[in-house]
Amino acid sequence: MKKVIVIGGGTGTFVALTGLKKYPLSLSAVITMMDSGGSTGRLRDQLGVLPPGDLRQALVALSSSEKIWRDLFVYRFENGDLSGHNFGNIFISALEKITGSIEKALELATKILQVKGEVIPVTFQKTELCVKLENGQVIEGETHIDEPGKIARRAPIARVYLYPQVSANPRALQKIKEATAIIIGPGDLYTSIIPNLLVKGVKKALAKSSSKKIFVMNLMTKYGQTTDFTASDHFSELKKHLGCDIDYVLINTKRPSDQTFKWYKSSKESIVFDDLPKKNKKIIRAILMDDLIIPKNQSDRLRRSIIRHNPDLLAKKIFPLL
Amino acid sequence: MKKVIVIGGGTGTFVALTGLKKYPLSLSAVITMMDSGGSTGRLRDQLGVLPPGDLRQALVALSSSEKIWRDLFVYRFENGDLSGHNFGNIFISALEKITGSIEKALELATKILQVKGEVIPVTFQKTELCVKLENGQVIEGETHIDEPGKIARRAPIARVYLYPQVSANPRALQKIKEATAIIIGPGDLYTSIIPNLLVKGVKKALAKSSSKKIFVMNLMTKYGQTTDFTASDHFSELKKHLGCDIDYVLINTKRPSDQTFKWYKSSKESIVFDDLPKKNKKIIRAILMDDLIIPKNQSDRLRRSIIRHNPDLLAKKIFPLL
Repeated sequence: MKKVIVIGGGTGTFVALTGLKKYPLSLSAVITMMDSGGSTGRLRDQLGVLPPGDLRQALVALSSSEKIWRDLFVYRFENGDLSGHNFGNIFISALEKITGSIEKALELATKILQVKGEVIPVTFQKTELCVKLENGQVIEGETHIDEPGKIARRAPIARVYLYPQVSANPRALQKIKEATAIIIGPGDLYTSIIPNLLVKGVKKALAKSSSKKIFVMNLMTKYGQTTDFTASDHFSELKKHLGCDIDYVLINTKRPSDQTFKWYKSSKESIVFDDLPKKNKKIIRAILMDDLIIPKNQSDRLRRSIIRHNPDLLAKKIFPLL
Repeated sequence: MKKVIVIGGGTGTFVALTGLKKYPLSLSAVITMMDSGGSTGRLRDQLGVLPPGDLRQALVALSSSEKIWRDLFVYRFENGDLSGHNFGNIFISALEKITGSIEKALELATKILQVKGEVIPVTFQKTELCVKLENGQVIEGETHIDEPGKIARRAPIARVYLYPQVSANPRALQKIKEATAIIIGPGDLYTSIIPNLLVKGVKKALAKSSSKKIFVMNLMTKYGQTTDFTASDHFSELKKHLGCDIDYVLINTKRPSDQTFKWYKSSKESIVFDDLPKKNKKIIRAILMDDLIIPKNQSDRLRRSIIRHNPDLLAKKIFPLL
């Protein structure tokens, strides 16, 4: 069975795993450990645990348990002391506190959710994602990068780095080494994808790996991170951090509805303009998207996007490339 | 196999179940649903769920799962938003919110904890435990009865009732009907034992049941509830609410250490004086107690007691009576 790994974190990785798990593949996920926002950020700050949110999403995506367990793991409390906290995050954090080990916590969550495949933290070491902007400003912490707040405009990102620098989970490096194919994304370029590539050992392992590398191009720009980025901007920024060739790029061709456009425009975000070479067999163009109207207060994995990749359409296009 | 039920809630029921589960018995617990303090009270108020704490303790007592699941269910967060909340309570409450049913929540918790036996809420209806004191004062809510605060002295309890009156869970009535033996206690008389007996249908079912009734006498008085109560005071107050005969009373003969005495004295609590008839085969006197020094900030089931019944000594004395 082909060994496929998805590198990322967040909604995008959830979508890719959800689609791909229907195929006969040995599927794993290498997951960013730099989230510092929302429920995850609070648990991290208050309990001193590693960030559970991205792990939890990947676990749920690969779960084959009864629906109720998946519902439980994505359940978000709406009132009182627990308001805004996600049950799955609380579960993973409690287990980490009791066992003193995120590995053991993951093992037990994997069991209860009957996870098919493996969810692998890219590192077990605590670190913060940081960026230096072109105007010299430094922003520390993933949530501050991800949510720029009500500023008129943020200068472009000049450099992205981890502080402190951390080493990769050996299991993640092993999986990269053994992989038949590596799917990068979909996911926010600077806050879900690149953080994985910055971890010591990952870039080298990717370069050495003979796996096929497949990049799923973002649908929309992200305000304060990839403002005005075209497809080739995304591609070259990724390549810079990846340090190896990309075999295929998947890019969506479906245009969102006018209503969706309007919603994104109000957030200073726009569709990623496809300026990649027109006739190139390595660039796969297809309808890969769902156009959704999702209330902002729903579960966190949908909260910030009203369009997203469709798991089945995406997996259907990826599978023949593997 | 003999059908044995333990009626109560809290630490006492945890202890009785822990001891009895080692014997070849069909064991169930009928559990009070009137707790309104601590983590349970906050979840109840903030999320509108039924009180999970007493159920959780009984589930853990009857669990045959790996130790880690039991550790998880009794784990109490110590910092941040979740401070003071117990994981098991959060788990049960989240499931109740998702499924809309405490029954379904219990079913899933029973599964994960591999519970041998059944944990049965005495009612599914929301109610508050209330008392009227002899000076006419009314106190509403279990936690306010249980924790009198820093008052010099509280008048004796004249009447205890539920408001609103609620009907029993039919499953609880059925279990009482079918039982070979019913163990009442150990547990706080007014806040863990009697609340079960006040639920509509329970008293009648107990009177009709041909089961043996066994009462485990309290070790210590409880300030503001059973201040200065002797053993016969406990017994007659229980009988008043039970409405049927008691076949056996188990009473501890071991004297706590001076240090323990001192600790209790500072809380205005004292040993329950044994003034029951000396030569009566229905009154079983034995060493049933552990003398423990437990830090007050440990897990909630131990927090308020430094002596408690020993599960094994208690079960060993109960088993031949069944």
